[in-house]
Amino acid sequence: MKKYLVTPGPTPVPDSVLLAGAQPIIHHRTVEFSKLFRDVTAELQSVFQTKNDLFVFSASGTGGMESCVANLLSIGDRVLVVNTGAFGRRWENILKVYGLKPEVIEYPWGKAARIEEIREKLEENPEIKAVFTQLTETSTGVVNDIESMAKITAQSKAILVVDAVSGLGGQEIKTDEWGVDIVVAGSQKGLMLSPGLAFVSISKKAWNLIEESKLPKFYWNFKTYKKFFNEKGETPYTPAVNLLFSLHEALGKILEEGIKNVFTRHSLLARAARAGVTSLGLELFAEVPCDVVTSVKVPEGIDGISLIKRMRDEYGVSIAGGQREFKGKIFRMAHMGYMDKFDVIIELSALEMMFNKLGYKVELGKGVAAVEKEFLKK
Amino acid sequence: MKKYLVTPGPTPVPDSVLLAGAQPIIHHRTVEFSKLFRDVTAELQSVFQTKNDLFVFSASGTGGMESCVANLLSIGDRVLVVNTGAFGRRWENILKVYGLKPEVIEYPWGKAARIEEIREKLEENPEIKAVFTQLTETSTGVVNDIESMAKITAQSKAILVVDAVSGLGGQEIKTDEWGVDIVVAGSQKGLMLSPGLAFVSISKKAWNLIEESKLPKFYWNFKTYKKFFNEKGETPYTPAVNLLFSLHEALGKILEEGIKNVFTRHSLLARAARAGVTSLGLELFAEVPCDVVTSVKVPEGIDGISLIKRMRDEYGVSIAGGQREFKGKIFRMAHMGYMDKFDVIIELSALEMMFNKLGYKVELGKGVAAVEKEFLKK
Repeated sequence: MKKYLVTPGPTPVPDSVLLAGAQPIIHHRTVEFSKLFRDVTAELQSVFQTKNDLFVFSASGTGGMESCVANLLSIGDRVLVVNTGAFGRRWENILKVYGLKPEVIEYPWGKAARIEEIREKLEENPEIKAVFTQLTETSTGVVNDIESMAKITAQSKAILVVDAVSGLGGQEIKTDEWGVDIVVAGSQKGLMLSPGLAFVSISKKAWNLIEESKLPKFYWNFKTYKKFFNEKGETPYTPAVNLLFSLHEALGKILEEGIKNVFTRHSLLARAARAGVTSLGLELFAEVPCDVVTSVKVPEGIDGISLIKRMRDEYGVSIAGGQREFKGKIFRMAHMGYMDKFDVIIELSALEMMFNKLGYKVELGKGVAAVEKEFLKK
Repeated sequence: MKKYLVTPGPTPVPDSVLLAGAQPIIHHRTVEFSKLFRDVTAELQSVFQTKNDLFVFSASGTGGMESCVANLLSIGDRVLVVNTGAFGRRWENILKVYGLKPEVIEYPWGKAARIEEIREKLEENPEIKAVFTQLTETSTGVVNDIESMAKITAQSKAILVVDAVSGLGGQEIKTDEWGVDIVVAGSQKGLMLSPGLAFVSISKKAWNLIEESKLPKFYWNFKTYKKFFNEKGETPYTPAVNLLFSLHEALGKILEEGIKNVFTRHSLLARAARAGVTSLGLELFAEVPCDVVTSVKVPEGIDGISLIKRMRDEYGVSIAGGQREFKGKIFRMAHMGYMDKFDVIIELSALEMMFNKLGYKVELGKGVAAVEKEFLKK
């Protein structure tokens, strides 16, 4: 049975990207490698829309998140987490592990952060050094208003640290124009690559904090990465070279399509996915839905866990379920990275057939038609 | 110009291993992934010769080293580093970053650790909790006597933590039989894979320390990896899935050849390489040479940096130079992982020709002949 991977990470990888990774390995202390690595870094800066320093770690996205905590802070620092779901909680957990006591503004799952609340918090507490949040919160399908948050932090001492692991390359973040101090991303989402690389961009304002930080770090130490990159175009420790070959190919594809066109495509797919599911009488879960994943409430009387399992087993179509307390209660369909119109069609078609089997009445073809209509709009 | 990569890491990757990594990605929260991951873990345990817990990190080998420090220790713990080169110093640096004050027995580069000295140190200081060292010290080409060290730590409270990043899969380490508490390895050396994965095996004795440890860790937290592996055959954070496909293929090749045969091959290649260079009048650098890399003193009057650069530029043959104070003074030729007889032949032939160009008198073909003789021995 042919497999269709439409989960919000990992996402499908184009053949040319997979094959680029199958090239013979090169040594990471050579002119050849430095050229590749400088090129890839410049391409990443284009996608991040930044001229800031940008480092590449051989690690999962979580490693990139941890690197921010370890490099920016010292015991006793006041920090704020704007928590809109499972990955917001991850910021809290990492901070606690390092002995910090984060203050948290927590929103119910499905809701987006309220900008006014953050503004008040920072105005009342000017000693807060950093605000940690998510661009798109994959667990709920919500997008946060990073542009407005950055305006607030720009007027305070605090820096803004944004986990864009699930968003980058699909949901626009204008790092420099908006003034986002730190952006963390991973390879396996919008960047159309297999997992194993994390990226972190760092503003001048953030470097001031890094200079003062006393938390322990070795593998994650930004200063070591900066030194090796600036002096030699290299990484301090052996990097995942073949993933960098793949990354170069993937970024080339993104830049060839054009960043604006990439975002337009994601936005169209998201609108179409939402039109499709709502046409079937389903309800969206996210208050402010993002462009990379659509989260939907499982209708009354349907076993949400079985829905996802059977779609995978019987149709080869992998979507994601809810996490934690929303397991079985929502499902999440991705439209990011190496996905296009017919991936959304597949999602809707598989849903229609599975709902049919599960006894939830839908008119076959209705969801697909709604998607097609969006695509046909001028 | 065809390229020949014979450096001590990264090492060449077989086509079938590269191509395995180009397979379509699978989701890391599926039965399919769990099966792959459990299989790979069992295969790694075979190569590590252990039944201990064994975790896979998406990271460089250095990340694996850091994970040991962060998981085993607390501020104030007494630890010993047995330092025989650049990677021994890395243990020191990581420990210091975490606020520990390691005691160090340091040997001049090229020398192996003296077992008696370690025994005395541990007998006189029974409160030492852990001993950190290297199996093969890539920077010098030395192999340490881990079997004897493990006998000493077995009789003390201390655990033995061995960085086998450059040795595993080429230089035998009998983890369980010798009683080595922690073994760290990486993917890009003897295991014939591209970089990006680190492996750590952990004994019951080591788990006692882990239970007491108070240093901060999130991405590296062994307990989280244990929980996810035992409960689901998964990793806590998105793993480098395509590298795991490759790893499965590479380990399959190693187990098919047979671990004993793999070590016999490495040992033969090492003997042959040593015979080759000494036949040219060159002097070995390592007091106790290992089986994965041969380090050789650059002869008087030859520019060692130019030797390596020109071998790469003019013949496409990449060997490694010396590190730190030995830059330009030694060169290092690997024979590990996906290498066999004719890789050693290539190394010797390229050396002969380059020495000829550089005006160091060698009889062309003499080094190669010495290598061939070793291969022809019964």
